Amino acid sequence: MIDRISKHFSTKHKSSMVGIGDDAAVIMAGEQCQLVTTDMLVEGIHFDLTYSPLQHLGYKAVAVNVSDIAAMNGVPEQIIVSMGLSNRFSVEAVDVLYEGIRFACDDYNVDLVGGDTTSSRSGLILSVTAIGNVPPKALALRSTAQKNDIVCVTGDLGAAYLGLQVLEREKQEFLENPSMQPKLEKYDYLVRRQLKPGARTDIIHELRELQVVPTAMIDISDGLASDIMHICKESEVGVNIYEDKIPIDQRAYDTALEFKLDPMTCALNGGEDYELLFTIRQEDFKNLENHPDIHFIGYIYEKEKGINLITRGEKVVPIQAQGWQHFKL
Amino acid sequence: MIDRISKHFSTKHKSSMVGIGDDAAVIMAGEQCQLVTTDMLVEGIHFDLTYSPLQHLGYKAVAVNVSDIAAMNGVPEQIIVSMGLSNRFSVEAVDVLYEGIRFACDDYNVDLVGGDTTSSRSGLILSVTAIGNVPPKALALRSTAQKNDIVCVTGDLGAAYLGLQVLEREKQEFLENPSMQPKLEKYDYLVRRQLKPGARTDIIHELRELQVVPTAMIDISDGLASDIMHICKESEVGVNIYEDKIPIDQRAYDTALEFKLDPMTCALNGGEDYELLFTIRQEDFKNLENHPDIHFIGYIYEKEKGINLITRGEKVVPIQAQGWQHFKL
Repeated sequence: MIDRISKHFSTKHKSSMVGIGDDAAVIMAGEQCQLVTTDMLVEGIHFDLTYSPLQHLGYKAVAVNVSDIAAMNGVPEQIIVSMGLSNRFSVEAVDVLYEGIRFACDDYNVDLVGGDTTSSRSGLILSVTAIGNVPPKALALRSTAQKNDIVCVTGDLGAAYLGLQVLEREKQEFLENPSMQPKLEKYDYLVRRQLKPGARTDIIHELRELQVVPTAMIDISDGLASDIMHICKESEVGVNIYEDKIPIDQRAYDTALEFKLDPMTCALNGGEDYELLFTIRQEDFKNLENHPDIHFIGYIYEKEKGINLITRGEKVVPIQAQGWQHFKL
Repeated sequence: MIDRISKHFSTKHKSSMVGIGDDAAVIMAGEQCQLVTTDMLVEGIHFDLTYSPLQHLGYKAVAVNVSDIAAMNGVPEQIIVSMGLSNRFSVEAVDVLYEGIRFACDDYNVDLVGGDTTSSRSGLILSVTAIGNVPPKALALRSTAQKNDIVCVTGDLGAAYLGLQVLEREKQEFLENPSMQPKLEKYDYLVRRQLKPGARTDIIHELRELQVVPTAMIDISDGLASDIMHICKESEVGVNIYEDKIPIDQRAYDTALEFKLDPMTCALNGGEDYELLFTIRQEDFKNLENHPDIHFIGYIYEKEKGINLITRGEKVVPIQAQGWQHFKL
């Protein structure tokens, strides 16, 4: 879809630095790169209001866009919110949604600077545009990973996907027995990772302090497998990812087994973690090696080596993308 | 709605110059003001695919956002397109939609720099973000009209609304008699104004050449009545608009009578004209007076005089907004 569309478009302005095909558009404005990104969340596709509280949803709509700015190594500063609402939403419901948006604005230090609210025939549509900036020398694209770079990932993977499984199971049980009380305490971490994910702007600030500029970066929205493939495809490189290095939280691991799912498959293909996946030069490793929340999971190779998972048994398995497939431009 | 939301939000960044409440957000970037605006078009609310060709719809989605940049006296440079599509849309349909987007990009000299395409449970959702810029000295807000300024409007008003009436009538006739052939030639101008409106970026370039900076500006999306009220409310001024100066095309006039509608009501409250409504200092009048497409329709007064229409019979009638009421932030 991306290729189909972008082949008909070319850019006319020299300010349009990087067009279609990265987490955010890059526009030159004075000495800075301005970053602009937009994401649409549609009821029934991206969220289910039977278990998504409106406040969390407002928060998430901001966080996922802030995450796209972070994925360019940028700092977000403004957001614009467009909302489509059917008449089943009261003014009070809109207030609650905006409360979540405001909490996210406070957490990520961004300003709400505009938007519009319109009608919708069915359900809720949230479209957030985030605007940020990055000095040109710090800009991290998907397309600039180099052979011998180290592959890094923040946080842990798979928890958001397992949170969704827990919520879907609760919903089914509730539909069968409406008098049931939800028992979610045990799954609190997983559910929170699904309903109210955090964007890793903290990492961006730390990388600046440590004077490390990633050679390439993306945020994990589709899943590690799919997103490392984006970096490899755009950078024309290969990769080895080591299974035993992929960070999985114990609660995600246990819950995967409870659901009879392979924890590694959840981590590779679950998506919606909104962690940062990036590559660094080997000489930068010493600056990051003691960071408690950055994990070193592989190496970049020449393209011909392919895109591989090295299993605990040291088998080389080609990685296939099975993650969420929105048609991201 | 705007007031309700904005009272909970304040801005944290000095780059966030003008927040909620104008046609576009204003962000300082180097020596320029960066303008960012977003508008969502929802099937069944903003358009009806029984008579909106997808190509025109793609064009219109870009034009209405470009118009919001023009309404700040800015020049658009980039757009980002987010699309929600239900499964009744084929890949070919999406191609046609993007063809319309591309025509608009060419007409308005803007670059498509990103976006995403996602699923939707029902129908088509188009959310376009437009990015432009303006030198700080040329920025035209809604809130800066001054007493004694002259009120100007471009083009003609009411035609887009009458185009919609024609299309709605055709649709009804078609539903009653599916074998009918549409007879739209006579209404070609009106229908085009509805389905494929133009944004007046030409006027922005001409104002720059003539070195005229409007004291306030807005684009006519809701209707002249509603939009002059926005300027007056935000600028804390009053206005007299002269009925005999309001530009109405002969074809709009004739069709209004055919529909037993008052042409002046269509011009005042129809909306979707995407013409520019602006105020200038009296000394700038000489630079614009011979412009064939700018009409001088009134004067700004002190707030206490109110917001009035001066009829052909010299009666003073308070203007009431009856236009489209999206809840624009």
